[in-house]
Amino acid sequence: MNASTTALLQQTQSLSEAVTRPIPGSRKIHVAGSRPDLRVPMRQIALSDTPTANGPQPNAPVTVYDTSGPYTDPDARIDLAAGLPALRAGWIAERGDSAVLDRLSSTFGRARELDARLDAVRFPARRAPRRALPGANVTQLHYARRGIITPEMEFVAIRENQRLEALADAGLRAQHPGQSFGASIPERITAEFVREEIARGRAILPCNINHPESEPMIIGRNFLTKINANIGNSAVSSGIAEEVEKLVWAIRWGADNVMDLSTGKHIHETREWIVRNSPVPIGTVPLYQALEKVDGRAEDLSWEVYRDTLVEQAEQGVDYFTIHAGVLLRYVPLTANRVTGIVSRGGSIMAKWCLAHHRENFLYTHFEEICEIMKAYDVAFSLGDGLRPGCIADANDAAQFGELETLGELTKIAWQHDVQCMVEGPGHVPMQLIKANMDKQLAECGEAPFYTLGPLTTDIAPGYDHITSAIGAAMIGWYGTAMLCYVTPKEHLGLPNRQDVRDGIMAYRIAAHAADLAKGHPGAQVRDNALSKARFEFRWEDQFHLGLDPEKAREFHDETLPKDAHKSAHFCSMCGPHFCSMSITQDVRDAAAAQAGQPPAPALPEQAIAEGMAGMSAQFLAEGGQVYQRQ
Amino acid sequence: MNASTTALLQQTQSLSEAVTRPIPGSRKIHVAGSRPDLRVPMRQIALSDTPTANGPQPNAPVTVYDTSGPYTDPDARIDLAAGLPALRAGWIAERGDSAVLDRLSSTFGRARELDARLDAVRFPARRAPRRALPGANVTQLHYARRGIITPEMEFVAIRENQRLEALADAGLRAQHPGQSFGASIPERITAEFVREEIARGRAILPCNINHPESEPMIIGRNFLTKINANIGNSAVSSGIAEEVEKLVWAIRWGADNVMDLSTGKHIHETREWIVRNSPVPIGTVPLYQALEKVDGRAEDLSWEVYRDTLVEQAEQGVDYFTIHAGVLLRYVPLTANRVTGIVSRGGSIMAKWCLAHHRENFLYTHFEEICEIMKAYDVAFSLGDGLRPGCIADANDAAQFGELETLGELTKIAWQHDVQCMVEGPGHVPMQLIKANMDKQLAECGEAPFYTLGPLTTDIAPGYDHITSAIGAAMIGWYGTAMLCYVTPKEHLGLPNRQDVRDGIMAYRIAAHAADLAKGHPGAQVRDNALSKARFEFRWEDQFHLGLDPEKAREFHDETLPKDAHKSAHFCSMCGPHFCSMSITQDVRDAAAAQAGQPPAPALPEQAIAEGMAGMSAQFLAEGGQVYQRQ
Repeated sequence: MNASTTALLQQTQSLSEAVTRPIPGSRKIHVAGSRPDLRVPMRQIALSDTPTANGPQPNAPVTVYDTSGPYTDPDARIDLAAGLPALRAGWIAERGDSAVLDRLSSTFGRARELDARLDAVRFPARRAPRRALPGANVTQLHYARRGIITPEMEFVAIRENQRLEALADAGLRAQHPGQSFGASIPERITAEFVREEIARGRAILPCNINHPESEPMIIGRNFLTKINANIGNSAVSSGIAEEVEKLVWAIRWGADNVMDLSTGKHIHETREWIVRNSPVPIGTVPLYQALEKVDGRAEDLSWEVYRDTLVEQAEQGVDYFTIHAGVLLRYVPLTANRVTGIVSRGGSIMAKWCLAHHRENFLYTHFEEICEIMKAYDVAFSLGDGLRPGCIADANDAAQFGELETLGELTKIAWQHDVQCMVEGPGHVPMQLIKANMDKQLAECGEAPFYTLGPLTTDIAPGYDHITSAIGAAMIGWYGTAMLCYVTPKEHLGLPNRQDVRDGIMAYRIAAHAADLAKGHPGAQVRDNALSKARFEFRWEDQFHLGLDPEKAREFHDETLPKDAHKSAHFCSMCGPHFCSMSITQDVRDAAAAQAGQPPAPALPEQAIAEGMAGMSAQFLAEGGQVYQRQ
Repeated sequence: MNASTTALLQQTQSLSEAVTRPIPGSRKIHVAGSRPDLRVPMRQIALSDTPTANGPQPNAPVTVYDTSGPYTDPDARIDLAAGLPALRAGWIAERGDSAVLDRLSSTFGRARELDARLDAVRFPARRAPRRALPGANVTQLHYARRGIITPEMEFVAIRENQRLEALADAGLRAQHPGQSFGASIPERITAEFVREEIARGRAILPCNINHPESEPMIIGRNFLTKINANIGNSAVSSGIAEEVEKLVWAIRWGADNVMDLSTGKHIHETREWIVRNSPVPIGTVPLYQALEKVDGRAEDLSWEVYRDTLVEQAEQGVDYFTIHAGVLLRYVPLTANRVTGIVSRGGSIMAKWCLAHHRENFLYTHFEEICEIMKAYDVAFSLGDGLRPGCIADANDAAQFGELETLGELTKIAWQHDVQCMVEGPGHVPMQLIKANMDKQLAECGEAPFYTLGPLTTDIAPGYDHITSAIGAAMIGWYGTAMLCYVTPKEHLGLPNRQDVRDGIMAYRIAAHAADLAKGHPGAQVRDNALSKARFEFRWEDQFHLGLDPEKAREFHDETLPKDAHKSAHFCSMCGPHFCSMSITQDVRDAAAAQAGQPPAPALPEQAIAEGMAGMSAQFLAEGGQVYQRQ
């Protein structure tokens, strides 16, 4: 091993403490399934007792969904150079419908393996890929349609329930009825329900047989709203170690999926490090690497180069491909009068190719051959919205909707091959036009999951597009979008750094959860109820721990009240000790409860009213009537 | 003048460079009205030319609404110890319906003036207050109902139009039709329309006759959506100089109104410095100072202390008072079973008072006397939502809606006195319940302007509540809310610092603008169109300058591409030079336009198709077909 390899390994083997320290207040737990090798990770947040006049009242722990993988498990031994444990390997093998190959299938992959100049960056632990046996179809959709409940489906059902059935405090289940616009979300998710949703194409479970390290998850309207974070280098920024750390950072804060959108150096090698170490599904846009192979000249792309790239990436274990097969030649002129033309990288590359050759998009013309590849590994489609609007002015135009219609057509073809499929969406859309996007996608695409980028609800805030888009994302999630692709504060300005990744994820976890609440997703309000109860009772630590970002919440509180004593203070620096409304309310509530038994003030003679009131007044003051609740 | 005064003056006289340097790319302009002393400030953003094959094409400047006051005007001479120019003084005097008093009317005010211990913090330039002549009513509502168009109304009409009629580039006016849920927004705002809206109570123009420094603005559903920022100290934080700087900072970034919510030391003196130096309306919650006067004991509050406080603050020039007159005794028990009780400071104080005395809220019982005071100075009501929900679980409950019904009743009483009135709203509300809030407020309050705090759409993100609430604020603004009170990242955790104030304002300027776009407010899309055009043409400086936060946009861009040469680069670090979709699109668009004249590909024999396509292909490549647009 040469010095460069050693250096890279040292870098990648030492994830920073910031990305691996346990999430404050949370304990990793595993919920057992029907077999010993099926253990579903979640996070449990222990809460302190509520002090009451009758002694301390315990607060049952709250369980939350956890995307952070083994990195936040103090019992896990992490070795980035070895990758994560292949938790699904047994399930894949026992299905008996795939085989380990003796070598890589792609020309590029084979050449890459032998290139000594890449030794310094290559992932050290070689693994031989799997592929479906001849004639076999290894997709979850194929199994689902044959009535088979896979271990992956069972895993997902347990995961989605978030142990609600075990929630000790029934009061936390109080929830406003939702408005789900026709979704069908059951009170309790069963493995059979998961199978059904996958079988009808309304949900996908992205899990390439070459990504056995992944913790299964599901994307669909009738499940928890999911989010995706983008990582990846570009020609002007970022190395492998940094991308791996970004991955671990992104899932720590709540990314359900990650797309590796690298366009710079060592795309193949970077991806190997990422997939081997990712507990979440990984998506890519194969066109980027294909373009790199033809030295950046879009017109030199060909089906052959692209096909080889699909196989190369499928054998690495990529779980879904964004494929811009809907950018048809006839749609391209419809972008001529747009304000921002084509903003999708993939879309603009294919548009350029189409015009250079004056031929139909080869991704479209070769679509069924793509399906043959996807079904041999269980890679899901993410049908790319290459013609999405890149500004408010271009929203909902003919180019965008024309492509959406074609994506609907392609969805049906994918389903004929039992290939899992989701459909990408906008973009930049003003609020009053958002619902039309959801309605059209439902109509055109047979309820395949919708996966949008925002949308941004205005163009005028570069530097804050995580916010302009969180607004649109929350709304379109409410209307039925299954996964929301995050946008960071760096959108339109540059490659995001770690702080931007965190900010983007927080904005999107908020949007996804706001959508779940609005849909009335069973149990969604538990966390809000638990946190608000902790807030009202001044259990500051509990409030921080239940929040999406416990570290930030504590940091902000401590900026003005840093001492430990402040963590039991019945105020914060916003209002100080005299003016804290929650403090005052404690007393108000006690007195009001005492009074609540009283009928509404009747029409009494004035003297009787005055006497009655004076009596109540004296009673309230006698009971203490103090601003501070006694400890 | 003693050493302490000198020190304070030095502090306050030296606003930091950060709050006063010109906003990058903007030039302060003044649009003349019908009289020489009526000049409406706006900002003009000059844009660079678009390079084209036929030579540079100029881009007309874009005018935007400007809240920053004289502080960003390089021609203005700022002297904080003297206050801003009294631009409305002449208009007020010539109405002839008020008189300058020879001394302050409030007991507290008089005592304060004579207290030598306050010399160090007192605003140096004394001014005698005005009050309506006996029997006169000096509110804008009173004038409006008598058919009078005041200079303030004319000012507002000019301001709201943002010089759209002078916009040279008609293409920028392209805009999607909105969905305004029954609002009535004209293509062009006239002074008569302003008068009409005020007369029917659907809008308010907050401008106390003792705040002649204010630049008139309007709050109403049929005008641009406005935002409010909160400043003010608490017992555990912040001095006068810091609060003045926060004011200037807040309006720099776009606060239309500012509320001084101080609860700490020197509330009166702090407010004087703020009002004298504020070009925007200032709101307060008089109850806070009243509580300070009774040493923090809510039960010791009385109508007499409160009345004196109203007069004291009205004579300083406060433009609107938040008054929790809807917290009725019978509603208080309805909060007993809430998760977070009463979260409004004012609401909890009044609830405590009601229970301690077992009497009806004195703000309610003395409401008409309050009106008599308000009409003598033109202070507007902001009817406080003391029983707003402080968590998702408590949203839309009986306590909240009971109070809203009473606020409707009080609005009608205020109107009987020609006192301007807006109504405050929630709070914490999940998305599916937001519209019901707007609908109920419209029904109960006669279309008086709605002024909400968010609402927050989930409780689970302390540290990010500017985002949880921007989602709800954008939606409720779309539905018809006239003003949105900001929420900062510090909400629930502590007093906001300057960074938090900026973040909160940006989130709310976004929400307000997203609402204007969704409503189809005439001209709202101009800025989005201009910015997106600049973005597409890689006019980086123009993109920054047109954004809500030019400094942040540039800073983010420069993090990865800092050199000046990068400002004409046709890429940024997100994708690098090969992959920039906008770059590629330039070429695509040219070729597509050439092709656009062609009919759709007909059903031709295969050979003819191949020949036709090869011809088009050759033509495209012959025309350049390059990734980079030539300079």
